[in-house]
Amino acid sequence: MPTISERGQIMPASPIRKLVPLAREAEQRGVEVIRLNIGQPDLPTPQEGLDALKKIDRSILEYSPSEGLLSLRNKLADYYHRFKIDVTADDIIVTTGGSEAVLFAFMACLDPGDEIIVPEPAYANYMAFAISAGAKIVTVPSTIDQGFALPPVADFEKLITPRTKGILICNPNNPTGYLYTQKEMNQIRDIVRKYDLFLFSDEVYREFTYTGAPYISAFHLPGIEEQVVLIDSVSKRYSECGIRIGALITKNAELKRNVMKFCQARLSPPLLGQIVAEASIDASSEYMLMTYNEYVERRKFLIDGLNRIPGCYSPIPMGAFYTVVSLPVDDADRFCEWCLREFEHEGATVFMAPASGFYMTPGMGRNEVRMAYVLKREDLARALKVLAAALKAYPGRTTE
Amino acid sequence: MPTISERGQIMPASPIRKLVPLAREAEQRGVEVIRLNIGQPDLPTPQEGLDALKKIDRSILEYSPSEGLLSLRNKLADYYHRFKIDVTADDIIVTTGGSEAVLFAFMACLDPGDEIIVPEPAYANYMAFAISAGAKIVTVPSTIDQGFALPPVADFEKLITPRTKGILICNPNNPTGYLYTQKEMNQIRDIVRKYDLFLFSDEVYREFTYTGAPYISAFHLPGIEEQVVLIDSVSKRYSECGIRIGALITKNAELKRNVMKFCQARLSPPLLGQIVAEASIDASSEYMLMTYNEYVERRKFLIDGLNRIPGCYSPIPMGAFYTVVSLPVDDADRFCEWCLREFEHEGATVFMAPASGFYMTPGMGRNEVRMAYVLKREDLARALKVLAAALKAYPGRTTE
Repeated sequence: MPTISERGQIMPASPIRKLVPLAREAEQRGVEVIRLNIGQPDLPTPQEGLDALKKIDRSILEYSPSEGLLSLRNKLADYYHRFKIDVTADDIIVTTGGSEAVLFAFMACLDPGDEIIVPEPAYANYMAFAISAGAKIVTVPSTIDQGFALPPVADFEKLITPRTKGILICNPNNPTGYLYTQKEMNQIRDIVRKYDLFLFSDEVYREFTYTGAPYISAFHLPGIEEQVVLIDSVSKRYSECGIRIGALITKNAELKRNVMKFCQARLSPPLLGQIVAEASIDASSEYMLMTYNEYVERRKFLIDGLNRIPGCYSPIPMGAFYTVVSLPVDDADRFCEWCLREFEHEGATVFMAPASGFYMTPGMGRNEVRMAYVLKREDLARALKVLAAALKAYPGRTTE
Repeated sequence: MPTISERGQIMPASPIRKLVPLAREAEQRGVEVIRLNIGQPDLPTPQEGLDALKKIDRSILEYSPSEGLLSLRNKLADYYHRFKIDVTADDIIVTTGGSEAVLFAFMACLDPGDEIIVPEPAYANYMAFAISAGAKIVTVPSTIDQGFALPPVADFEKLITPRTKGILICNPNNPTGYLYTQKEMNQIRDIVRKYDLFLFSDEVYREFTYTGAPYISAFHLPGIEEQVVLIDSVSKRYSECGIRIGALITKNAELKRNVMKFCQARLSPPLLGQIVAEASIDASSEYMLMTYNEYVERRKFLIDGLNRIPGCYSPIPMGAFYTVVSLPVDDADRFCEWCLREFEHEGATVFMAPASGFYMTPGMGRNEVRMAYVLKREDLARALKVLAAALKAYPGRTTE
């Protein structure tokens, strides 16, 4: 039998994946599983998007252009202008989800052996796309004690080698909810400029910032416009993760041509998703405000509740809809598994994502979990109750 | 400025891409461009698929499972049973078009430096996906004189090295329309077994075979079931290229687990496309017959017409909806460009794909073009007239 690729073997299977069958088994035992583990919002897709589907009047569902429909790219440009991101339709390449934007950014910028520096904890799939491209992710740790603020510039500089090609940030951050300050963004810009790097900036959560602090896009930073590769997606902001529409945005003409080769090879992004996404950009301000207010309330409710549980600590996330929480447990992987396998409280248990999956440095985040507040307040209330009870009952509880 | 990847630089831009702006310019001059260059059928999507869109009754367009909707995979399994392909839903992974199936097959099977052998001419994007995976495509030439039959086994064996990991075939073939015989498929099986290789088999055109000769799937070959990676797509058979739904099918459990890591990293295939694809599998037999008969007629009409033009030769394609034609010209790249740039006949010109884009061996196919017969008979009739006139007027015409 021919052997499978080494690339595939070294790709880490997400720790959540191991838990998915346990959650299913718990449900089969009649236990309700409250899912805090994934960023699948329970809020509705905008009616404009849903209506656009019913109005499709085509007899052929044909290829769209490899770079995406012009009408969508024009609308996206208008959308970015609202955030003072000065781009045109020509700078925007529509991708199959933000995922493909990351993959193509890596494919077009990085060669095997090239390195990019990423603050950890970080979205686990960046690693998978880096492995696909043969590139190496090098992490610079941020810590819960510092509220997951940007690590000191010196920590980045220590990691720079002749193979370093870029820095990747996610802002607002998945999994921490951190929002980089102007000062931090300036520091990033300075490193990017000093060492002539690409800045990959995943900004899919820009709609969701809660503290009044400004959202600073990588494209707001003067002097590195051609080095920025912005990653975007409509999945989270319009609760339409399933339509697989994202975007890669660059003002670098040579890079654009290079990315387009990968786009042309896969022919086109999904036509139907593009139609829905385009209509969704017209979502009413009531819709956007409803969504926003919902997350504001859930965030306050969840974080307050968590910090009231003895031994739990969550920094206050400034954006996105996640938080990383430290728990009084020996090992969060084991605790999350135990919750699904052995624990229930009033007929329910919780499914959390162990933070180990978001760190590359072994041992980091061992007592942390990521929670997504994409559930209704009642569900969050029950989750908090279950968690408090679970922490009391868990045999591996630590005392501090 | 950081440099872009070498990978992207070596990726060949398809020769069609250079012609696309010329076609646009011709249209701006008021010349009608008859497009024989791409495999975008003009036949309607099945009504069942279009209706399914209007019936979508979901308030959230959420992620689907990374392996695709179970209901779609079950239906696909039933569909394959009609062709005596013995697979279950568990063997089927839904992908974002056949394109992603090829990419993930390469990513999961091949490491940088690994080689696969592909008969040429071949679908140009296989090369792009191989470059993405860092793998090397090695071609074994088939020739128009032999009607693009499978090259002799000895030609394959000469190319096998310790890095050879697989053979890739497309059957029925894009671009040649060739359909491998049982004898040829047995030869492929023997090589695959003897050298312990993967057999990547792209069978997206299986519905379209015209000569009564049987379609032999790679899964029909006994003894290599675990080595076969079948690539499929609904794009061509239901005229729904834009929905981006394909499949990767394997009975190799280890490979399946490996492919799933790449699937999980990109989260999910397009939800809406899956809904349309699932409904389209119920397309009536009248629809399938109408489509089939249309291609039968177009094929006969185009091939007869081509072979009547002095100096033109097209073998009779047995399947798919393409043919590779040799023309009495010095250089088909130049001729195709000239048609768009300088020629018109009764207000129209033709857009053909130079075959050079389908060969890797330099110089091969220099006087050949690929034509897709995805246009109405009237359009094909005019294309033939324009082509005949163009060949008379072209300054680089050869005499033989």
